[in-house]
Amino acid sequence: MSAEAVISPPTVRARRLGLFTQHDAIVLMREDCHVCRSEGLAARAQVLLAAGGREVLATLYQVGRDLLDQDQAGLSEAAWARLGVEEGAPITVRHAPPLASMSSVRRRIHGHRLDPLSLAAIVADVAAGRYTDVHLAAFLTACSALPLDTAETIALTGAMVEVGDRLAWDAPIVVDKHSVGGLPGNRTTPIVVAIVASYGLLMPKTSSRAITSPAGTADTMETLAPVDLNVANMRRVVEQEGACLVWGGSIRLSPADDVLIRVERVLDIDTEGQLIASVLSKKIAAGSTHVVVDIPVGPTAKVRSDDAGSELASRLAEVATAFGISLRCLVTDGAQPVGRGIGPALEARDVLAVLQNKPEAPSDLRRRACALAGAALELGGAANPGEGLRLAETALADGRAWSKFQRICEAQGGMRSPPTAALARPITAPSAGRIMQINNRTVARLAKLAGAPDDKAAGVDLHVRLGDEVARGQPLVSVHAETPGELDYALDYAAANPEMIELEA
Amino acid sequence: MSAEAVISPPTVRARRLGLFTQHDAIVLMREDCHVCRSEGLAARAQVLLAAGGREVLATLYQVGRDLLDQDQAGLSEAAWARLGVEEGAPITVRHAPPLASMSSVRRRIHGHRLDPLSLAAIVADVAAGRYTDVHLAAFLTACSALPLDTAETIALTGAMVEVGDRLAWDAPIVVDKHSVGGLPGNRTTPIVVAIVASYGLLMPKTSSRAITSPAGTADTMETLAPVDLNVANMRRVVEQEGACLVWGGSIRLSPADDVLIRVERVLDIDTEGQLIASVLSKKIAAGSTHVVVDIPVGPTAKVRSDDAGSELASRLAEVATAFGISLRCLVTDGAQPVGRGIGPALEARDVLAVLQNKPEAPSDLRRRACALAGAALELGGAANPGEGLRLAETALADGRAWSKFQRICEAQGGMRSPPTAALARPITAPSAGRIMQINNRTVARLAKLAGAPDDKAAGVDLHVRLGDEVARGQPLVSVHAETPGELDYALDYAAANPEMIELEA
Repeated sequence: MSAEAVISPPTVRARRLGLFTQHDAIVLMREDCHVCRSEGLAARAQVLLAAGGREVLATLYQVGRDLLDQDQAGLSEAAWARLGVEEGAPITVRHAPPLASMSSVRRRIHGHRLDPLSLAAIVADVAAGRYTDVHLAAFLTACSALPLDTAETIALTGAMVEVGDRLAWDAPIVVDKHSVGGLPGNRTTPIVVAIVASYGLLMPKTSSRAITSPAGTADTMETLAPVDLNVANMRRVVEQEGACLVWGGSIRLSPADDVLIRVERVLDIDTEGQLIASVLSKKIAAGSTHVVVDIPVGPTAKVRSDDAGSELASRLAEVATAFGISLRCLVTDGAQPVGRGIGPALEARDVLAVLQNKPEAPSDLRRRACALAGAALELGGAANPGEGLRLAETALADGRAWSKFQRICEAQGGMRSPPTAALARPITAPSAGRIMQINNRTVARLAKLAGAPDDKAAGVDLHVRLGDEVARGQPLVSVHAETPGELDYALDYAAANPEMIELEA
Repeated sequence: MSAEAVISPPTVRARRLGLFTQHDAIVLMREDCHVCRSEGLAARAQVLLAAGGREVLATLYQVGRDLLDQDQAGLSEAAWARLGVEEGAPITVRHAPPLASMSSVRRRIHGHRLDPLSLAAIVADVAAGRYTDVHLAAFLTACSALPLDTAETIALTGAMVEVGDRLAWDAPIVVDKHSVGGLPGNRTTPIVVAIVASYGLLMPKTSSRAITSPAGTADTMETLAPVDLNVANMRRVVEQEGACLVWGGSIRLSPADDVLIRVERVLDIDTEGQLIASVLSKKIAAGSTHVVVDIPVGPTAKVRSDDAGSELASRLAEVATAFGISLRCLVTDGAQPVGRGIGPALEARDVLAVLQNKPEAPSDLRRRACALAGAALELGGAANPGEGLRLAETALADGRAWSKFQRICEAQGGMRSPPTAALARPITAPSAGRIMQINNRTVARLAKLAGAPDDKAAGVDLHVRLGDEVARGQPLVSVHAETPGELDYALDYAAANPEMIELEA
């Protein structure tokens, strides 16, 4: 090569723009800057930013003279955080290197199954942020059009574990719990953790924030205690209480999963293989050995039939076994939302009512939590077969679970009270009749339009259950929102979607 | 609904940021602006901008206090142009409406074929800019994993025509020509148009700029004459000369195709059905009645085998017939690049040499152009069967085609000379031997890395053909570039990809 090739690449000075783009790494540079000219960079090029040994792939947008100096590169917050530079630090910008693993994605699109090495290369590129939305959507779509088989699912799961952090616990049995989702208000985790830990089993629970739903367990828990703990603090809580209820986002457990799920959400596709890899990669990375999975089945739940539920259960168990994990699935009734509240704070209120053993506590939430906790107690060896449910109910009745929950919250930084929304408005029955159907998806969407989960207090309170007889004008649900805009937006949606709650005269 | 719902939505003032994002419509707003707060808009939300009856879907990014006033919405150039507002004009910003046609895409992902109405709804949303990259990639991937059948291809073609403009010509026969691509330097169109028009057939040619290749016909023609003509000027040229050679981009022929092709390029997928819909929707919209298609076949061309070429030809003809178009395919030799130059200006030089009947003109380019022009003359009724080739050769030999070409260029705004690059560097044979293989893809990529097609003079000059004997140190190709950075980048790539030109001792 010629002498020019070995001189250092040209640099620009980093500038923090305060540009919030969610996860998008974006760099703005002057059209007439020396780097754009010498490298032949055009607007919307994928570029590799480098500084101090770190590299970030970003999308380049170009600007005229107003916004930047000629030697500046303006970074979005996401790019700034990942690159970890100081204001004015020199950074290099060049064409992104070719994405070799995309040839595997193309093969997968054309119907060829992928071996573990190919999947590992894809997942490594995904976790490193090298896939744009176009690449991610193509990979996910290809894995939906021709669903992942068991070998691919195992390989994908393993690859997703490998690219992230792993937790290890000094205990032979580490219990975990997962719900396949799709059922609004199904906030059993805080109750299950409190019960299981009250019997001495280790249950260091990391949860996600909402992705497609109006609330994730971490969103709900955050209205009750701090959940954004680093690993050291999480360990301290677990050593002290045998359990925690923290947000998994500050620990890089299966980071590729977070990237893939973001795009799955936009596409609203979630196939079995991806679901299994997503669930199990997080559990394996979290160091879990015994996992109970709740699979709600219903016409508007994520899983639509008992057969599909059983099939998912058996494939989950098969993949779990490949990683030495004991797994037990409970296929549960997913015909309608669980409890009353849908949205972080409203669900937290229901959770507290169950833990405090209040008579008005939603009985379905209580029943589901006890079934899952009972299964976990049996799976983890803290209850004999057939005795788990009774032990779980006892822990709620005698206040043991509530006391354990309070200690966990205190250890995480102090218990607090869930907030209340500024605005609430009922939606009433247009006629008298019996409740024949409640659409989980429509109810969830209503809660999201009202502002959940970003507004913790926003969401929906469900006043009726399947089979209830209601009078004309009786409130069916209440919408809680922080702003008039969101309240109107949600009420508009409810008016346009009367099938949300179906009545029969 | 309540009284709040009927008041006008809140507005912000438009500000032109001079932000170049290619086609991305982006809006920047303050995190603390009243619209973001009242509508509950978060960073990276898809939003609908509206002003003066126009609507644009955009991605919202948020900023702190430095870049914008609290009531300003900063627009990227793409958003600014589509919304067509003045500086400071009031615009409304709200959540993007739900994308109903995505349910069809999801059905397609899961293996269900789409009816014409579903495809029309998808294409309408694509053309209106309502699909994000994620949606576009999912649609294209789904149509690759389960390839479009003939009924779907016809429906997609028709839908793509419907959403754009259409040209109509006052003539019973309107000739057109297309090359399936994948063959660097295959710049026959200007020669074919000149020959065909010299025999009095109407050939109003609209061409594209390069998408995946180092040069499109419009890029090459632009080095010889203006090509960015509006419809009125295009008509004037065609009325005067019976033909034109303009860029199709200023006319909205099959605009959804442009959106889809951009994503296909990123994914590097291009399936038969999409290819057919892309080619024929443009031809139908352009008012063509008789179309000749060049299908180069070779190990590194887009079409890899004669069987695949024949299959594509028969499906092209079948879909064309459904729209009343006479179509003839020529399956041609695509084993190596055509001519010598690869890149807009270098290809223009070869085109001129053929038109001017120079002895050093590349004989393969001349032969291919005559074959296509001959087929077009026969298809259009200007030559008896079997006589087209001879007529085409005559038009080159007697200067008729060259004279027609010059008149077309003058009518389009004046003929000009192609530019020459600032830098050129040979790549030499590492050993003596015979040229066994020339990789079309690697050569094309080399030309692109050198700066083509954005730098019109950049590209590659190929000094050897398959079967040539070369001495050690003899130049195989020359790389032409405008900047040292691009030259180095291209030479690095060539050094890393010695399989570009394979020698046998």
